[in-house]
Amino acid sequence: MAESGAGQGSERGPTAGSWVDTAERVGVDLHLELPGSGSRRGALADALRDSVRSGRLSPGTRLPPYRALAADLGVARNTVADAYAELVAEGWLTARQGSGTRVAERARPLGGAGRVAEDAPVRDPGPAHDLRQGAPDASAFPRAAWAAAYRRALNAAPAAAFGPGDPQGRIELRTALTEYLARSRGVRADPGRIVVCSGFAHALRLLHGEKVLRGPLAVEEYGLAFHRELLHGAGVRTVPLTVDEHGARVAELSALGSGVRGVLLTPAHQFPTGGPLHPERRAAVVDWARGRGGLVLEDDYDGEFRYDRKPVGAVQGLDPEHVVYVGSVSKSLSPALRLGWMVLPGHLVRDVVAAKGEREQWASALDQLALAEFLSSGAYDRHVRRMRQRYRARRDLLVRALAERAPWAEVGGVAAGLHAVVRLPSGREREVLIAARARGIAVEGLTAFRHPEATGGSGGHDPGGDGLVVGCAAAAERAYGAAVEALCEVLERVG
Amino acid sequence: MAESGAGQGSERGPTAGSWVDTAERVGVDLHLELPGSGSRRGALADALRDSVRSGRLSPGTRLPPYRALAADLGVARNTVADAYAELVAEGWLTARQGSGTRVAERARPLGGAGRVAEDAPVRDPGPAHDLRQGAPDASAFPRAAWAAAYRRALNAAPAAAFGPGDPQGRIELRTALTEYLARSRGVRADPGRIVVCSGFAHALRLLHGEKVLRGPLAVEEYGLAFHRELLHGAGVRTVPLTVDEHGARVAELSALGSGVRGVLLTPAHQFPTGGPLHPERRAAVVDWARGRGGLVLEDDYDGEFRYDRKPVGAVQGLDPEHVVYVGSVSKSLSPALRLGWMVLPGHLVRDVVAAKGEREQWASALDQLALAEFLSSGAYDRHVRRMRQRYRARRDLLVRALAERAPWAEVGGVAAGLHAVVRLPSGREREVLIAARARGIAVEGLTAFRHPEATGGSGGHDPGGDGLVVGCAAAAERAYGAAVEALCEVLERVG
Repeated sequence: MAESGAGQGSERGPTAGSWVDTAERVGVDLHLELPGSGSRRGALADALRDSVRSGRLSPGTRLPPYRALAADLGVARNTVADAYAELVAEGWLTARQGSGTRVAERARPLGGAGRVAEDAPVRDPGPAHDLRQGAPDASAFPRAAWAAAYRRALNAAPAAAFGPGDPQGRIELRTALTEYLARSRGVRADPGRIVVCSGFAHALRLLHGEKVLRGPLAVEEYGLAFHRELLHGAGVRTVPLTVDEHGARVAELSALGSGVRGVLLTPAHQFPTGGPLHPERRAAVVDWARGRGGLVLEDDYDGEFRYDRKPVGAVQGLDPEHVVYVGSVSKSLSPALRLGWMVLPGHLVRDVVAAKGEREQWASALDQLALAEFLSSGAYDRHVRRMRQRYRARRDLLVRALAERAPWAEVGGVAAGLHAVVRLPSGREREVLIAARARGIAVEGLTAFRHPEATGGSGGHDPGGDGLVVGCAAAAERAYGAAVEALCEVLERVG
Repeated sequence: MAESGAGQGSERGPTAGSWVDTAERVGVDLHLELPGSGSRRGALADALRDSVRSGRLSPGTRLPPYRALAADLGVARNTVADAYAELVAEGWLTARQGSGTRVAERARPLGGAGRVAEDAPVRDPGPAHDLRQGAPDASAFPRAAWAAAYRRALNAAPAAAFGPGDPQGRIELRTALTEYLARSRGVRADPGRIVVCSGFAHALRLLHGEKVLRGPLAVEEYGLAFHRELLHGAGVRTVPLTVDEHGARVAELSALGSGVRGVLLTPAHQFPTGGPLHPERRAAVVDWARGRGGLVLEDDYDGEFRYDRKPVGAVQGLDPEHVVYVGSVSKSLSPALRLGWMVLPGHLVRDVVAAKGEREQWASALDQLALAEFLSSGAYDRHVRRMRQRYRARRDLLVRALAERAPWAEVGGVAAGLHAVVRLPSGREREVLIAARARGIAVEGLTAFRHPEATGGSGGHDPGGDGLVVGCAAAAERAYGAAVEALCEVLERVG
């Protein structure tokens, strides 16, 4: 028998039948196919593993003796012995004196993959008309320029860049950001004050989740529910400040009591209602922070995108010791990159870096190097300029279309950013959202951004109430016009 | 005066002197230099901002009237008015009826950058001889192959890849991992069971920090203090299991009481002591998890690197419903990338994805795409093969050198991984570490990896006690030999 089937050519067919003809009947009808080349032992082990996995070899089944299987497959006896030993070591098989080699009892087949796939969260395939806020035009990502910067950065990087990373962030990126933020946003930084993170939410986690800052936080009465929930999850109470067309009414801070020593603001362009923080309020909030030994958290989420004039600089520039400035590439470049930065008062740097851990656990050092190169080569500026023009045109298109087709729906805020708030008559938001959804439009209502404890509504300045937060950026260029058209149809019908 | 200096050439010098000659004396000796080209308004605003920042214009200082400064600089009056208005809007200046335009009181200069830089954590410039465990050879990162995969992946990516990301991870990566992990590690996965993360610590945060799993966790009595501390910080009690040359003594699990339903293991190569989990223990821990409705957390931190035989497959393959398999590129490719993966039992997928949030906040989608391409193009296998040979040679060199020069220092564990444990006579570890440090060698002592509650020491099988955990990988190829030589010198002297 040892001579039969000694060939190892790929024409070898199933070899099972012969087993039952051997002197030792092993009660197993095993179809093993070994590929024609490569390690015999590895191939046999793989084949056996597959058989157990698939359930063809069921738990408890006794395998053929080495000699029989070796003869059957035309391989050396040691090859079979080694393959069995490997699967015993992995726990697929058991080998006991006197009972031979058997399939282990615990080697259960993988429960139907179909079921798992059905259990797993189903991802949104994307709406017909995407007017969601929060993301830039994904189709405009500068693939070639970014990949070129990435390659240049990798070539130029010191070897240590591929080792464990400094949790503060790569010095190349912190240096490039220092220059860029001063020039474009009036931020007064130096590389020692910058800590790289994965985005604004990560900054909140580091500051409040990791308890670098403690106590309740004043927030604008309109903002991202995600941020509020993150803070609440970290045990931080948020106290809403009224918002009007000049941004947050920071004068209310003084009435909040000395327990509140931090305030989270979107000074460049209140999110989402759209008013830039009034100069007097910029000054007042810095005064408040100084007087209370407190901090302003400046979320500069879309500071580069102002269309009616040059962007107003960051509040941070007024007093770097009382403002934490946070920015990211999520609106300017892509939320897929997961890169952001904090510019910190000097006394917080050590604690925030410690909160990140001994090594960089989050932001890819290679992406950091690529962004440094992208910034310092001028590619970032070029991209932002291009997108500023595009988003400006889109926002203008929305404003013109609404003025013509639904003049009762007023667009609030200044000409800036990647979204616009469309105010609706009181009580109509839900109806509009339902009609929009039926039309295949993905768009959010303004009330979803409202703090649950917001008093709102008082005085003529309140920009709140019912409305839509219309994202002008997420749609691809060719799809945006149709999305605005669809929205206008919905508003015409509802209005 | 309006005619003087009307030119805007770059040869324009400081223009201060003339101010004090104007009818309105403004008490300010301001040197403003405007560049020869570009927007006059922007240049003036920048120059004024710089003057306030640098402290040359101190708080409260009254600025020249529009007319005077316009004449002085040879620009239009409106240009000055606009620049002033811009800085008022930013809070640098204040403008009040009757008192003119002044530098705002709150515009404090940035406290000396030098001080901040000194306050900031100082990074280790790196030791003379790097024998730390935990990182691969950074100088061996496959820059060209990775950058090429990155570029191909970016070119091939759908536009949506540059938008907000699926928190489960890119399907391209999960698909490539399913194939790779089955082939190389015997992991039974499908893309629906994989969740991408930033590394093992992130997996622990998601499972235990976010309370997907609750209750105390059994751990090996030797392991990374960082992981234990992370768990303790999340309120998770860790209970040590004794470790011997066959890995963790999982039989001890039954005695721990029904409160312990999870166990964290390094089955391929116990970290750091080096024993692979014995086949009977692999079976037993799966049985235990089934019986208790519990889970095995399998940290496959260096599973690809076994030198004496083919790597033993993952325990996960024995029962995918009772094992969470976790891997990353941190040892195989680079810890700078921040990419890892969990293969989860079906019933945990939804909760873990929810713990990650509505959108991907951590792992760069572009890096994920690049890794998918790197895996499926075979570049990952090639790199791992190359590094396996390199690390094997390094480990062999260490073992040979120690056998010759310090035969009393036994190397424990199997021939695998990126480190080796060198056992020392009882009570000598501290002395050796001090001597090593004096010699410029960065190396860790074994006791630092020991669980504070470890009972250890009992029985002849205990691999613990005094020792060194010698990383064979972190040093660059040309530096490794000298590092081993230095270590031998230290051990010769101490022994």
